[in-house]
Amino acid sequence: MAGNTFGEIFKVTTFGESHGEALGCVIDGIPAGLVIDTDFLQSELDRRKPGSRGASVTGRKESDTAEILSGVFEGKATGTPLAILIKNTNQHSSDYSDIKNKFRPGHGDFTYYEKYGLRDYRGGGRSSGRETCARVAAGAVAKMFLKTKEIKITAYTKEAAGIKAEVFDEKEIENNTLRTPDKNAAVLMEKKIEELKKEGNSAGGIIECVISGIKAGLGEPVFDKADALLSHAMLSIGAVKGIEFGAGFSAASLTGKENNDEMSQGFGFKSNNAGGILAGITTGADIIFRIAVKPVPSIYMTQKTVDINGNECEMKIQGRHDVCLCPRIVPVVEAMSAIVITDLLLRNSVSRIS
Amino acid sequence: MAGNTFGEIFKVTTFGESHGEALGCVIDGIPAGLVIDTDFLQSELDRRKPGSRGASVTGRKESDTAEILSGVFEGKATGTPLAILIKNTNQHSSDYSDIKNKFRPGHGDFTYYEKYGLRDYRGGGRSSGRETCARVAAGAVAKMFLKTKEIKITAYTKEAAGIKAEVFDEKEIENNTLRTPDKNAAVLMEKKIEELKKEGNSAGGIIECVISGIKAGLGEPVFDKADALLSHAMLSIGAVKGIEFGAGFSAASLTGKENNDEMSQGFGFKSNNAGGILAGITTGADIIFRIAVKPVPSIYMTQKTVDINGNECEMKIQGRHDVCLCPRIVPVVEAMSAIVITDLLLRNSVSRIS
Amino acid sequence: MAGNTFGEIFKVTTFGESHGEALGCVIDGIPAGLVIDTDFLQSELDRRKPGSRGASVTGRKESDTAEILSGVFEGKATGTPLAILIKNTNQHSSDYSDIKNKFRPGHGDFTYYEKYGLRDYRGGGRSSGRETCARVAAGAVAKMFLKTKEIKITAYTKEAAGIKAEVFDEKEIENNTLRTPDKNAAVLMEKKIEELKKEGNSAGGIIECVISGIKAGLGEPVFDKADALLSHAMLSIGAVKGIEFGAGFSAASLTGKENNDEMSQGFGFKSNNAGGILAGITTGADIIFRIAVKPVPSIYMTQKTVDINGNECEMKIQGRHDVCLCPRIVPVVEAMSAIVITDLLLRNSVSRIS
Amino acid sequence: MAGNTFGEIFKVTTFGESHGEALGCVIDGIPAGLVIDTDFLQSELDRRKPGSRGASVTGRKESDTAEILSGVFEGKATGTPLAILIKNTNQHSSDYSDIKNKFRPGHGDFTYYEKYGLRDYRGGGRSSGRETCARVAAGAVAKMFLKTKEIKITAYTKEAAGIKAEVFDEKEIENNTLRTPDKNAAVLMEKKIEELKKEGNSAGGIIECVISGIKAGLGEPVFDKADALLSHAMLSIGAVKGIEFGAGFSAASLTGKENNDEMSQGFGFKSNNAGGILAGITTGADIIFRIAVKPVPSIYMTQKTVDINGNECEMKIQGRHDVCLCPRIVPVVEAMSAIVITDLLLRNSVSRIS
Repeated sequence: MAGNTFGEIFKVTTFGESHGEALGCVIDGIPAGLVIDTDFLQSELDRRKPGSRGASVTGRKESDTAEILSGVFEGKATGTPLAILIKNTNQHSSDYSDIKNKFRPGHGDFTYYEKYGLRDYRGGGRSSGRETCARVAAGAVAKMFLKTKEIKITAYTKEAAGIKAEVFDEKEIENNTLRTPDKNAAVLMEKKIEELKKEGNSAGGIIECVISGIKAGLGEPVFDKADALLSHAMLSIGAVKGIEFGAGFSAASLTGKENNDEMSQGFGFKSNNAGGILAGITTGADIIFRIAVKPVPSIYMTQKTVDINGNECEMKIQGRHDVCLCPRIVPVVEAMSAIVITDLLLRNSVSRIS
Repeated sequence: MAGNTFGEIFKVTTFGESHGEALGCVIDGIPAGLVIDTDFLQSELDRRKPGSRGASVTGRKESDTAEILSGVFEGKATGTPLAILIKNTNQHSSDYSDIKNKFRPGHGDFTYYEKYGLRDYRGGGRSSGRETCARVAAGAVAKMFLKTKEIKITAYTKEAAGIKAEVFDEKEIENNTLRTPDKNAAVLMEKKIEELKKEGNSAGGIIECVISGIKAGLGEPVFDKADALLSHAMLSIGAVKGIEFGAGFSAASLTGKENNDEMSQGFGFKSNNAGGILAGITTGADIIFRIAVKPVPSIYMTQKTVDINGNECEMKIQGRHDVCLCPRIVPVVEAMSAIVITDLLLRNSVSRIS
Repeated sequence: MAGNTFGEIFKVTTFGESHGEALGCVIDGIPAGLVIDTDFLQSELDRRKPGSRGASVTGRKESDTAEILSGVFEGKATGTPLAILIKNTNQHSSDYSDIKNKFRPGHGDFTYYEKYGLRDYRGGGRSSGRETCARVAAGAVAKMFLKTKEIKITAYTKEAAGIKAEVFDEKEIENNTLRTPDKNAAVLMEKKIEELKKEGNSAGGIIECVISGIKAGLGEPVFDKADALLSHAMLSIGAVKGIEFGAGFSAASLTGKENNDEMSQGFGFKSNNAGGILAGITTGADIIFRIAVKPVPSIYMTQKTVDINGNECEMKIQGRHDVCLCPRIVPVVEAMSAIVITDLLLRNSVSRIS
Repeated sequence: MAGNTFGEIFKVTTFGESHGEALGCVIDGIPAGLVIDTDFLQSELDRRKPGSRGASVTGRKESDTAEILSGVFEGKATGTPLAILIKNTNQHSSDYSDIKNKFRPGHGDFTYYEKYGLRDYRGGGRSSGRETCARVAAGAVAKMFLKTKEIKITAYTKEAAGIKAEVFDEKEIENNTLRTPDKNAAVLMEKKIEELKKEGNSAGGIIECVISGIKAGLGEPVFDKADALLSHAMLSIGAVKGIEFGAGFSAASLTGKENNDEMSQGFGFKSNNAGGILAGITTGADIIFRIAVKPVPSIYMTQKTVDINGNECEMKIQGRHDVCLCPRIVPVVEAMSAIVITDLLLRNSVSRIS
């Protein structure tokens, strides 16, 4: 009800705040016998970690070491809950002391306070991007399952600070600070982000995600359509303000003739305006979607806001913050996608008489 | 698991196919004592009904009469499940006989067949737009609840067939066949749709939805953010291919300075790029979102596809179909929004010690 | 949340009250392709129907005709929700007019009123035994699934009005009004019940249920143990006040040496004190449990109670009521067991890497 | 689905095995602002801890220190998940080395192996009684909530090793090793258990639980009746083989006249055969139930069993084990009851229009 669990069969519960003792997740519903690759788990967490992506992301150092507490025996999942713990080691509460009595524009400070009547004013608390490390951990386990099905998920920055990637070169993605598959665009994006950083400003962007190797027939017909669940998952990531599948918003101005994907010999498709999903169920073509990422709300300029009594005031945020979230959200998009697809695969295994 | 239930406390289960005996819903979790307005329920179903919206929608006549089977006594909800039955009275199976062995492009025929190994070939079955009448019925009950909280939901066609509404005149919405708040745009849209209809083609569009009167503090922090749940709900509607909140995709190219909504005296906001939601929780400003509606896939032109053996073939769809779905999806968008907001309000009532 | 849905994958939602238009259920999660036997469905409803079981049950005539509204095509489940409607045709509201302002002892009148602030005073409403016909309908579908797995569920009256069945002769069960497998005990029970009926009194009893053909490995380890779910299901049936598995309460005074079931060659068990379940998971031996059924609270003697203002008064219940519920609860026990086991089988199919 | 989460609004997920790194729980849905009493939390864990209850329980030393990882700020629940970690510090895997290839009678060794195809043979794994420390931790938080509503839960040993408590003296409960409210019975029980211990045998018993201070109107009408949920909760505790409410199994041989609880001035009840629940909803009288606890299956006598190939063999269990589980299950019964009642209270707060 409070919404900290996601998934039906492959069920992920996360806990933890930016300034608490630890974050983590409990994954219930992992099929027994799945090989658990702890190195891969750690490498996924390292991808999300700040400090390795240049100017676009915060200099805050987080070690983010995953400890598996349960659910694994002799390297395999036992069928019981796999709990992962990630200790918080680098909180600087002093950095945040000014925000106790003022609400930061663009943040959840005010909305949390209104909801709960109290809030952990030392940072973003549960709304901090830090919460996503628990998702990345759970997503890493989901990826281990998807690997056994030869399903691959690749997300990347399609646009940042107004600059679009025009080329798709997969091996470039992890080679630049923006995680964009276009080498030249990466240079321009980084330059623009440096400029914004200098003026204390920030940038948004667009992330694209491709899920390949997926069979037709995945997804549930009415409320739990594959695209509905992916949308739920993506919009549950902080800073994401929109999603579109295949032709997406541009389909609004196409005709049916233009937009329909005709089928070809052997159940293939001649185009993929549908983004791999028809009537909520996968077609066997790649699932393709894009999400809109808003600019980081923590900027180093004086902003107008109100204090906890509702009186207008000014504030200037301190601390270390990302300039553009895209490269750090990329692994989170992959993780949440992996969780959704794993869950749908397991759900699908009971969809017909065997 | 099979995904025909939506909501946590205000829980809606729908059933029924386009060519079965009946459709309907069971609503569990209506607070006892809620006054049930059966006239309003019927009027909402009438809004979704085809035949009253000109060229854009099908000439198929559906009476869509709601029968309440349980859960109401002396005009009030009893706290037990309210079941609503809507009989199918106008199926013409003969219209669909050709589609038994061929998959219609842009439809769920193929994906359903792959998922289940069988399908009701007489029509869209469970993926038919007809399924949404059960949602509209449930949404009508949710609206009765929201009325007691003075919350109002208004959806309308923002763009159709490439033509944008430039003016917002609320009283125009129900005055034209497109359900657009711009009188002049309505004329242009209708003209364009007539043209497409003549050539056997179809059109897409964009629907915008505004939820007003909502207090700050609604929504759950992590996976069940208000925007995540609304996205789940919207993408569960057939033909919807994208959603964006507030500034949405355009936020991707804004800076933080431009995008942040500064606060004003008394917990107000000077702008609403956030679309009324920050960190997944409502700000008290209007919730605003837009969805992309793909063009109707049933067009009257010869299309290439495959048969159930995977062999290429041609097909020409018969029957009566909408040209642009926007006006008929408008009440569905409102219904699903009402269900989400009602559920979040009930969920919120247990969020803090009273 | 309001608790009218049961099951995780095989999910049953029921609706309807004793004096409403209709009762019914929506079953979500039936694997596509399951053959739906409508004659069997009706025959199960007929077993629950009053009027065919002699003195022990009410003379009220209920036709209980099942109409399938959705989810079946060409005799097979489509994978979409199967909705079943059972119209109420024989309510005599006038019979109940006296109970509007007084709370019947042993009934839910008072507790419903306290919970909801209003109640349908024409009868038991949602707490009426009539609600169970929707469960029997859903259970019939579950039995169709279990038949494909060669699992058989048999419930019967083990004790009624203080008289115990000492013999197990399966073919006797449906041959006497008590549904007891002991021909001689049936005569004694019936005689005792006639006497109680004459004095306007009623009787309780014990029902035993055996589930055979079940494989080892079914059930979930912690909260959703097979016995925990069966207990949940059984205690959700009105008038049931207790349950015990295998040796049950008598195990409390056994030693470990006496109670442990030793294993025999080929994973068999030499005894079955466990009732077929160890650590919440089936052993492969028959599941055996017993439930305690309280005497019918509607008796035709003057009883002391209070009115809706809390003032003491007397009341004498009118109408037609069962004297002993056991024979009518037998099919409900089987139905709920079938739902639990079907759900656990489906859940189990995702418990390990295939 | 895998069943490691319990509750709807107050939702408890547990993780951890007897021989893993740690056990713990994540509690979602705690109303923000609830004061968290960490001393009380630890004291509840200490009550469950072995080593302090004489001969009846194991000599194994477990420190069971609770660490709160998240969800609390300045002593109050924040509304976000409260995670509790309890490290395993005293596992002696060597004690269990013999059981790798043989199934212990009365244990879940065989059933787990059948279910998952593998098992953590170092001990009971997830089916170990050790798992219940996570439940006790969660129950302690639930009790903090119930305290604000003046609801009190008291469980105690009603019978052990065939000896019944005849007297109820509440202050005695924590004064003897059996947790029984009858001083004299305690002496006899302890003596009998010593004897059984000497011969390497074990004993069962009956635990009774009383929930007082509860208002009328709690529980959901159909599947989630208060007694159904309590039964689910109790039978989810290892070694519990039955439950009965109020008159329970003895109601089976009562008449309606004898069993009905007449009401008295001001909505009271003259008796409590119902055990505080009618039609699944609380009456305002104390909830009373009893559970049957089987004798500890780990006995120190040679038993016949089979190995993992299904071949008959003998085994003699080593290690330190309880002789009678009752005193250690008492806090678990209270904890699970507290979780159920807290959840029902929160669920009830949305049952009618406010």
